Amino acid sequence: MRRKIAILGATGSIGKSTLDLIERSPERFEIVAVTAATNVEALAQIARRTNAKVAVVADDSRLRDLQELLVGTGCRAAAGEEALIEAGCGEAELVIAAIVGCAGLRSVMGAVEAGRIVALANKEALVTAGALMIDAAARSGATLLPVDSEHNAIFQCLAGSRREDVAKIILTASGGPFRTASAEAIGAATPAQAVAHPNWSMGAKISVDSATLMNKGLELIEAYYLFGLPSDCIDIVIHPQSVIHSMVEFVDGSVLAQLGSPDMRIPIAYALAWPERIETPAPRLDFAAIARLDFEPPDPERFPALRLAREALQAGGSAPIVLNAANEIAVASFLAGQIRFTDIVRVVEEMLHQNDFDAPRSIDDVLGIDLTTRGRVEVLMKANCS
Amino acid sequence: MRRKIAILGATGSIGKSTLDLIERSPERFEIVAVTAATNVEALAQIARRTNAKVAVVADDSRLRDLQELLVGTGCRAAAGEEALIEAGCGEAELVIAAIVGCAGLRSVMGAVEAGRIVALANKEALVTAGALMIDAAARSGATLLPVDSEHNAIFQCLAGSRREDVAKIILTASGGPFRTASAEAIGAATPAQAVAHPNWSMGAKISVDSATLMNKGLELIEAYYLFGLPSDCIDIVIHPQSVIHSMVEFVDGSVLAQLGSPDMRIPIAYALAWPERIETPAPRLDFAAIARLDFEPPDPERFPALRLAREALQAGGSAPIVLNAANEIAVASFLAGQIRFTDIVRVVEEMLHQNDFDAPRSIDDVLGIDLTTRGRVEVLMKANCS
Repeated sequence: MRRKIAILGATGSIGKSTLDLIERSPERFEIVAVTAATNVEALAQIARRTNAKVAVVADDSRLRDLQELLVGTGCRAAAGEEALIEAGCGEAELVIAAIVGCAGLRSVMGAVEAGRIVALANKEALVTAGALMIDAAARSGATLLPVDSEHNAIFQCLAGSRREDVAKIILTASGGPFRTASAEAIGAATPAQAVAHPNWSMGAKISVDSATLMNKGLELIEAYYLFGLPSDCIDIVIHPQSVIHSMVEFVDGSVLAQLGSPDMRIPIAYALAWPERIETPAPRLDFAAIARLDFEPPDPERFPALRLAREALQAGGSAPIVLNAANEIAVASFLAGQIRFTDIVRVVEEMLHQNDFDAPRSIDDVLGIDLTTRGRVEVLMKANCS
Repeated sequence: MRRKIAILGATGSIGKSTLDLIERSPERFEIVAVTAATNVEALAQIARRTNAKVAVVADDSRLRDLQELLVGTGCRAAAGEEALIEAGCGEAELVIAAIVGCAGLRSVMGAVEAGRIVALANKEALVTAGALMIDAAARSGATLLPVDSEHNAIFQCLAGSRREDVAKIILTASGGPFRTASAEAIGAATPAQAVAHPNWSMGAKISVDSATLMNKGLELIEAYYLFGLPSDCIDIVIHPQSVIHSMVEFVDGSVLAQLGSPDMRIPIAYALAWPERIETPAPRLDFAAIARLDFEPPDPERFPALRLAREALQAGGSAPIVLNAANEIAVASFLAGQIRFTDIVRVVEEMLHQNDFDAPRSIDDVLGIDLTTRGRVEVLMKANCS
């Protein structure tokens, strides 16, 4: 029996890597649904190539175009949020949740509530709605498989272990482009400097998050919800080569680590085939060539984002949503040249101080807090600029 | 229900560490049998302290002394090889096989044939009788749990995985005290230099094996039998810090590694509690303090023992027994100042060339080949010295 797969966000980077892997193992996987935000041309091409049964475009206004592109294929065209949710909880056994940002929340929750195996490539699902997602998964029996390389590493290290035997999770962080930069240099950082990530090729927003270490802060929050450990049992260590993707320390003193080349097809393949494995074309590690792995403690002075993320996690409730939304707007402003690099964390901290939202009780609540916070950040930044 | 434990070789280093762990978790373990080669005083003390039901001394002539030392304890005293074997396949569910050398073979085989969980701390069992042990375990349903830190690391990395998903095993080696030494310096190495192992505190014989890398060659043979991979899927990489105890590469390109401080209580604890874990007092790893891990390829010119071990493994049959016996005698001669450091490997190579034994079909065969080889090595070395 082939595993039935839905790819929510099939035209993005994770979607493309997933398709690459699935097309290498046609005997194992069958694509039942693919979705995209607006790009109906790319979506229709994917649907044709994979014989998908349903193709969904989030943007309603592109439905007619999608229908025309799929004429004669046997693939049904659909559009809008309800159709997106249906794509993730229809026939699919395993859902790749790769829609970027809060736009993916409802469809992820739909798949979780339907008890599917959900391969999570959407950070916001756990950062902004972690408690809701974990509760829903516990009720429905859904399995959450992290695709993020760090959390996937931890998931691999935990395979075959009892949760009570885990002492600590150790998230590794590359340290980003400013790992060895002085506080002054960081204060004067330009967008071009901030997006130059040393190990992974990524989008601008997440590259800036790697430069502030906010990315690791968000991953700390994800790890907390995903693995159910107290936040003080989640450590962060700087490891500039990014060869060790993360580690788990057990009560006996053993540490298990997952290592790999910086190729997202490895964690995606693990999620696709779990609990088995499939071959990937990812480059193999050559330890004699790697020669050396380094570690250092993160510097809380130059990288205050880690402290903020821990504070948001400890505050709980709506704080991680505010952290995430404020960071997103602040990073966009930095990339647009409107604020300085060090202002990103200042804006986030200010918004966390102002936070007066109750804990969310639904995805609607999450989206409301997210939207309101974004508005407040814009107001704050305008006030500061004027 | 407490797990019933027999410790074959209770007075040695592994035996002592095992007792330390068991005494920290009295709610989990019950010691039913303890054995020693000759030291009845230490054995009786252990038997009293642990309320063991049987204490066995291998040396028949010490039975009377042991009986006297155990008067009034309720612990039965026994002696001789049959009693040793009985200790490992009587009431015990898990047998710690920690008798050093070929003297341990019959009792290990007894426990394997009886279908016990056998925690293997005796290298010779797999090096000299690997095929016999693995066949016997397959017939009886015995579980072989390696206690050696490298093989224990691999076993931990394999937990929860299918054997067909494994691409490669990567054994790490410290490189020993001569890792950076020139060929000339190695040629002139003294016993004192050879036993100065950089990371682990060990006996003289195994320290010399670490210096020649024969230790890693023997571990290669053990890994071959234990994990059932072709020998060309077992790599060796030099890792001077010995923090990573070994690694497994999977077909998807993921590598899992087990790391830990150099404390044998970690692998022993894993074997004792398997498939669960128990707390140990072993020092925790601090990655910021470790700061750096290095890797380099082994140098086949300066360390020919690795090639010899691979050749013995590929030849199969009696070759690993000859390799092991010749090495043991040659190392003893080196430690006694009778041959040079580089002669150790020369002697082993010469004995492998002379090898005309059939493959062993029983432990008796193994012991016969071992004994005859030892005699031949003595003759060879006398001829070379005169």
